[in-house]
Amino acid sequence: MNRQSYSFIGGDSGDWRIDSVRPVTGTALACPPRLAIEHSQVAALPVGAAWLLRGVTSNQRYTSRAQQTKLAAVQPPLGRPEATCGALIPISKSDAWWSLAQDERERFFNAPPPAAPDHTAIGMHYLPAIARQLLHGRDLGEPFDFLTWFEFAPSDTPAFDELLARLRATEEWSYVEREVEIRVSRDEKRSTSP
Amino acid sequence: MNRQSYSFIGGDSGDWRIDSVRPVTGTALACPPRLAIEHSQVAALPVGAAWLLRGVTSNQRYTSRAQQTKLAAVQPPLGRPEATCGALIPISKSDAWWSLAQDERERFFNAPPPAAPDHTAIGMHYLPAIARQLLHGRDLGEPFDFLTWFEFAPSDTPAFDELLARLRATEEWSYVEREVEIRVSRDEKRSTSP
Repeated sequence: MNRQSYSFIGGDSGDWRIDSVRPVTGTALACPPRLAIEHSQVAALPVGAAWLLRGVTSNQRYTSRAQQTKLAAVQPPLGRPEATCGALIPISKSDAWWSLAQDERERFFNAPPPAAPDHTAIGMHYLPAIARQLLHGRDLGEPFDFLTWFEFAPSDTPAFDELLARLRATEEWSYVEREVEIRVSRDEKRSTSP
Repeated sequence: MNRQSYSFIGGDSGDWRIDSVRPVTGTALACPPRLAIEHSQVAALPVGAAWLLRGVTSNQRYTSRAQQTKLAAVQPPLGRPEATCGALIPISKSDAWWSLAQDERERFFNAPPPAAPDHTAIGMHYLPAIARQLLHGRDLGEPFDFLTWFEFAPSDTPAFDELLARLRATEEWSYVEREVEIRVSRDEKRSTSP
């Protein structure tokens, strides 16, 4: 449960090649050639870098014990040798989202049947193919509320595309006011992902 | 819903006189003469100060819409002229707490009858006498997970003492591994509280 800081630096160095940077909602980010991931809170934008995005791990905000148990049984670790594709997706939600009460936000993660699959159910469907680490930036005063880092094998790219499409079609996503999709890849087997 | 940083500085200056600093659980803090409250994130311990405690406002983590509506109808603002007593209570909870799932933590704030009154119900009982502002420090890497600031009139001191005693008797408090109770007061009518 130790809090862990991560810094994602877009620039000229790093283990991951940046293949694309796409503004999904709101303002884009620059598209430098490489992504470096530091397991610490880098204090300031390194010289020559295009952007620095920071976040911290935190406690679970919405998952129930039953969901956590199911997730723990199937979620893969980061750093699998075959997972040479990655994605960093920074998002921010609107003031309307943050003004919702806890029970109002939870229904997007814990919708009882026969509701449409919720965020948690959709994510579960793509396990164990897609590894994922959620980081929080809002309480730090960072420009994005969340950074989510994903890793998967090239053959699971269509599944990852589908995961994103399904999440973006949810009612929850109507509260997303900024989202950028950064796709990356690497050649080597050794990963320095979070 | 704007995130707001607060810094509490124990030292030789500030609008509040520090009357006592009591370690309730775990290590104490020093007891300097005055408490200053800055509405910003002070970067480093000012020269001559004994301690600097920082936190940020954030979204509600446990209160339901029904509870928020009830609270909004009765909770008093900070800075009431008659509220010349204050208390700053920094606490940290254990790894066992932070490892609980959301539904497991929520039951301490939303216990259905005939359970004993939960955290929310106990707090509600002392409104509108006791004004309160919760600040978060855990995701910032601060030494305390939470800082709670209270303001009340001298005549409501017995009610405040009872509020603390009742909260500390809850099962939730078995997860508190550090708590310090800082009691303050001021003479003037004008407040610089959060």
